[in-house]
Amino acid sequence: MKPYSAWTKDELLSEKESLSAAFQTFKTKGLSLNMTRGKPSAEQLDLSTPILDAVNSSNGFTAEGNVDCRNYGELTGISEAKKLFAGYMGVAADEIIVAGSSSLSMMYDSLSRAILTGVLDSERPWGREEKIKFLCPVPGYDRHFNICQFLGIEMINIPTLAEGPDMDMIEKLLAADPLIKGMWIVPKFSNPTGITYSDRTIRALAALKPAAKDFRIFCDNAYAMHEVYRNPPQLNLLTACKEAGAPNMVYLFGSTNKITFPGAGVAFFAASKENIAFTEKQLFMQTIGWDKLNMLRHVRFLKDADGIRAHLQKNAELLRPKFDAVINKLEAALSGLGAGEWIKPDGGYFVTFIAEPGCAKRIVAICREAGVVLTEAGATHPYGKDPEDRYIRIAPTFPSLAELNAAMEVFCCAVKLAKLERMVS
Amino acid sequence: MKPYSAWTKDELLSEKESLSAAFQTFKTKGLSLNMTRGKPSAEQLDLSTPILDAVNSSNGFTAEGNVDCRNYGELTGISEAKKLFAGYMGVAADEIIVAGSSSLSMMYDSLSRAILTGVLDSERPWGREEKIKFLCPVPGYDRHFNICQFLGIEMINIPTLAEGPDMDMIEKLLAADPLIKGMWIVPKFSNPTGITYSDRTIRALAALKPAAKDFRIFCDNAYAMHEVYRNPPQLNLLTACKEAGAPNMVYLFGSTNKITFPGAGVAFFAASKENIAFTEKQLFMQTIGWDKLNMLRHVRFLKDADGIRAHLQKNAELLRPKFDAVINKLEAALSGLGAGEWIKPDGGYFVTFIAEPGCAKRIVAICREAGVVLTEAGATHPYGKDPEDRYIRIAPTFPSLAELNAAMEVFCCAVKLAKLERMVS
Repeated sequence: MKPYSAWTKDELLSEKESLSAAFQTFKTKGLSLNMTRGKPSAEQLDLSTPILDAVNSSNGFTAEGNVDCRNYGELTGISEAKKLFAGYMGVAADEIIVAGSSSLSMMYDSLSRAILTGVLDSERPWGREEKIKFLCPVPGYDRHFNICQFLGIEMINIPTLAEGPDMDMIEKLLAADPLIKGMWIVPKFSNPTGITYSDRTIRALAALKPAAKDFRIFCDNAYAMHEVYRNPPQLNLLTACKEAGAPNMVYLFGSTNKITFPGAGVAFFAASKENIAFTEKQLFMQTIGWDKLNMLRHVRFLKDADGIRAHLQKNAELLRPKFDAVINKLEAALSGLGAGEWIKPDGGYFVTFIAEPGCAKRIVAICREAGVVLTEAGATHPYGKDPEDRYIRIAPTFPSLAELNAAMEVFCCAVKLAKLERMVS
Repeated sequence: MKPYSAWTKDELLSEKESLSAAFQTFKTKGLSLNMTRGKPSAEQLDLSTPILDAVNSSNGFTAEGNVDCRNYGELTGISEAKKLFAGYMGVAADEIIVAGSSSLSMMYDSLSRAILTGVLDSERPWGREEKIKFLCPVPGYDRHFNICQFLGIEMINIPTLAEGPDMDMIEKLLAADPLIKGMWIVPKFSNPTGITYSDRTIRALAALKPAAKDFRIFCDNAYAMHEVYRNPPQLNLLTACKEAGAPNMVYLFGSTNKITFPGAGVAFFAASKENIAFTEKQLFMQTIGWDKLNMLRHVRFLKDADGIRAHLQKNAELLRPKFDAVINKLEAALSGLGAGEWIKPDGGYFVTFIAEPGCAKRIVAICREAGVVLTEAGATHPYGKDPEDRYIRIAPTFPSLAELNAAMEVFCCAVKLAKLERMVS
């Protein structure tokens, strides 16, 4: 298609008129479509439903070392769960703690403990500094930013380039400012772009020389094996940090919320042995232990890292047609038009749409008017403020293919309308 | 028996000699008995094991309101779980949040959030005060004290009297000191004494007029229906606080860890609607949701408050012979001897032994020498310091009756030896 910028004013006005008419038709349909959150569909959940039979009253509840999973004990998780998720995270079994069901709450918890008491190399609790700051690659995950905002941590946007976050900018900021105590990353099938950081980026992260000696990379590895189209190999960040002589600089988080059941999964924390020992002592203050029966369920159902990979391939087969639908609709309606770009993800749970500057909020508003609910524009940035108002996160996993196609028609219409509103009055 | 104080020196020396001989015999037996933690026995867990069949791949996972318990949603818990545990806690269904598996971690979390951000009526985060203090009725639960110590909260011992903690002392301290922000209590079948606070105590707690307007009673209702011998009725503390015009002063915590499975239970937080709304907003920052399948399991298995009561009666039948054994051994060996006292609990998980001043640590050490491990003396008090070195918490639930009898023989021998060591050299 010819870009709008090359159209005559009459052509643009006529296009706007026909789009407005189409939009009126959408509105009369009384649609109610939700593409806000990265929720698995019922069909995906069905793939995991046999896990509910993995532990029952007659098939035993004893874990390695004669541990009765029904009772107290094993603060850091049962051995077989450590082995399973260590394999999944690419770390050793003594570099992981398997705990409750929510990795987000483990991230919150780790960060709040750092504020209250400091981390392994802290001279004082982070909360005793005049203020602290986090680097936030954008676009990123709103829940990470919420945690920082809730805890009063100042956030600094870091642009994301082709291979990951802008490492030159990060290096300069970190070297100069000891109040920068941490950084969020989702290095594999990133939220929301679905891209995978290059090994060069991983090595550069591991080689960081922060002014704050107790700087921590909070690495949310939520989508470690969540391929949709292709699986770029990636150096393990903990391994890279060890090789760079900074084994304690990274905290890795993961869970099975996007493998088995959101909310009813198992979450884990991986880090250097020193960090694990330090964290275990602190966790002892917070709890006696977590749900070992659910760990056992996961071990029996998923078996090992290959089992997880195979299970996620089945998920990918369900996801691919949905991602295809989104990408195809975008390509058919918007290719070459200069009304916005999109990132075809390798994996993960989202498609990122990059609107023309100043158009994202308007697109979301137009969609809502026609009954299509998208994640709030701005959610991809700290404080909900996308400085150029461009990023929209599309979550295609939960709706049916029919709903998705209907929603994407409205979306593409809204993208064009928002652009045309700025070009012709 | 005649009290040791009325014995002649020769009688005491001869008694000591025969006890020492008995002790040597115990040592040669190579015992390995553990009475440290309040863990249910395998037989108790067996009572709950059918819960593992309550949710399987074929009997459905949909909760009220068409909620798929396998997916995200319902941050504050599924409706039927709220009803179930509201009934158990004696509150309304909109006065409860049902969350993860550990009430201890909910207590830690509530307290750490108060430090980081304050509570509903706080002028500033508790962490911004010069320091903060908690009142700690003693003897009490070591895990509560650990949390305070970890978070740098100064603890003040409050003696426990016949009807509960010394309310006169509490009233005076609270009225005078705005830095006292909270207080721990276990009002029903208290840990470790097993006593139940009187209604007069409950009303006095509700009528407190703390200098700190954001003072909170952290009420750990771990044993709400955990009768062993008798069940004294008790006024509900939240009801009492509402009647006294201070609905926001109390946080109630509970879980099914001592009803179904420790670690794999369900935990909950009950409070005024205002506190619940405030807390829900904060929890949204920490997590997307908890394990709703485990909530559903508990609802299907326990059904309602009467179901919980009936289930705990079955538990009580298993516990009663064990508590009987402890009490009987103490009575047979120590009655009238003036070597220590004990509290016969109404319910809960422990028997409290009150040694002669300065003897508790020594008793624990003697027992350990003969292979009987008890909770460290001092654990019942903040900072692990029992000022008079008197309190020992005996946990009779986990060992078998035979082990318990063997352990109590060693214990009673140790009690006498410790006393005699101080009377005759």
